[in-house]
Amino acid sequence: MEPIILEPIGVIHSPHINIEGMPVQPTGAIGFEGTVVVDEKYVEGLKDLEGFSHIILIYQFHKVQGYVLQLVPFMDTKPHGVFATRAPKRPNKIGFSIVPLKKIEKNILYFEQADMLDGTPVIDIKPFYPKYDNKTDVKIGWLADVDPVDITQLRSDDRFI
Amino acid sequence: MEPIILEPIGVIHSPHINIEGMPVQPTGAIGFEGTVVVDEKYVEGLKDLEGFSHIILIYQFHKVQGYVLQLVPFMDTKPHGVFATRAPKRPNKIGFSIVPLKKIEKNILYFEQADMLDGTPVIDIKPFYPKYDNKTDVKIGWLADVDPVDITQLRSDDRFI
Repeated sequence: MEPIILEPIGVIHSPHINIEGMPVQPTGAIGFEGTVVVDEKYVEGLKDLEGFSHIILIYQFHKVQGYVLQLVPFMDTKPHGVFATRAPKRPNKIGFSIVPLKKIEKNILYFEQADMLDGTPVIDIKPFYPKYDNKTDVKIGWLADVDPVDITQLRSDDRFI
Repeated sequence: MEPIILEPIGVIHSPHINIEGMPVQPTGAIGFEGTVVVDEKYVEGLKDLEGFSHIILIYQFHKVQGYVLQLVPFMDTKPHGVFATRAPKRPNKIGFSIVPLKKIEKNILYFEQADMLDGTPVIDIKPFYPKYDNKTDVKIGWLADVDPVDITQLRSDDRFI
């Protein structure tokens, strides 16, 4: 298939300058605030986004080199397929976070629970809509077999660089 | 910023050959089954995905031409910024669906609620994990002001081609 060429629509600024020591997932990043600086040419596309309490950010893990097909995730001691995890070291290096939106000023979105590296290129922004995005009666595969992990204590390490 | 070049990891097959008449969102696509044919070189990356009942598919709206910054979505009569909607005619044309996974056979994922066009290139597959992805206390902006729409009756039209 043909390659897909994307132009970032903006960039994330966050307190996380290095991958090592970063929080894992937005729910592990309570207290970290970030911004998305959207390219000014797209500012009209942000109209009415501010009314949503949560937004979906799709972005590139831009500092990750290469990928692995199986890995031992933070939350387990056994290897799993990369597509059965959220690990960044994956084909296409696409990240996905649902974060609380605080406010929008012109082309700058202020959000909470920033779990991305400073300088992360943003590919898309979508509103979170519970009717589409919340799911019930869910089975969680290998995650059901691991002990509950306190994600607020987890920090990234060099496995994922 | 530098362009991002992606290589599709697979392709979606679905009953939807034309954009016109397609269902809108997975919850509007009950009864439509689809498959993701993953490139065989990534098959090891699917290990243990089958235990999850729902997967997140990130893909490209490959038949969409250009983008608009504001549009009147299916569910309203007033225009909103494209980033405050799920409309396909958006910068980077990235789609995102959470769908029920039925089974995996080798490199082929069988899923329900297919709301994508046949031939859609897949960029990433992630497991749905309620602890990260379900949100409560959510505000839904302009969507709170529109009458409840029966999405199972909605079908795509030429506004989004």
